[in-house]
Amino acid sequence: MSEGVAVMATIAKGNELLTLINVFTVEPVHQQELVELLSQATQASVRYAKGFVSASLHRSLDGAKVVMYAQWRSVEAYQAMRNTPTAAPFLQKALALAQFEPGMYEVVETFAPAR
Amino acid sequence: MSEGVAVMATIAKGNELLTLINVFTVEPVHQQELVELLSQATQASVRYAKGFVSASLHRSLDGAKVVMYAQWRSVEAYQAMRNTPTAAPFLQKALALAQFEPGMYEVVETFAPAR
Repeated sequence: MSEGVAVMATIAKGNELLTLINVFTVEPVHQQELVELLSQATQASVRYAKGFVSASLHRSLDGAKVVMYAQWRSVEAYQAMRNTPTAAPFLQKALALAQFEPGMYEVVETFAPAR
Repeated sequence: MSEGVAVMATIAKGNELLTLINVFTVEPVHQQELVELLSQATQASVRYAKGFVSASLHRSLDGAKVVMYAQWRSVEAYQAMRNTPTAAPFLQKALALAQFEPGMYEVVETFAPAR
């Protein structure tokens, strides 16, 4: 999925990015299917959108949640993507499986271990 | 708070870390106070714990949520910190202000922009 390249995202104060932290609540029996749908939507569509910076997909250890942590250049860039139909088939299926709680954030501070 | 050093966290598949994504829901009038309490708890206590890797505090643009995205070496290290009393005064105040939804995750995949 990552084309053989080690892909990483960085979190830092003052990065001037919009951070989306979208929490999906799902029956554990459907967690893997939801992970695959969100992965396909991102791989096939979202990462082509203007202003997209990164997306990191997380699976909860208890099976009941999936979180997409995504970074965009601006609120406008994110909303433009949401209004394009390319990702819609995957996202419609994902929303049929899960409850979706979106949120738009900015980074206040990042903490490192004490020396 | 970050001692003049640019602190950042990185998200990557296969990092073998436990990721905590803890969502606090708060009255917007109390968001700043909650941010300060969580920041103080992390600065004064949590970052000294064994197995702590990083913590990134996020403020929602609508004022209604705060998210702590934290990385630990293991579930055991995180739980050991939760059972020590050092951070308790800050966290007790934080929990009096907010509803708290914790979650333990692993990174499934990180996506970069299409070339």
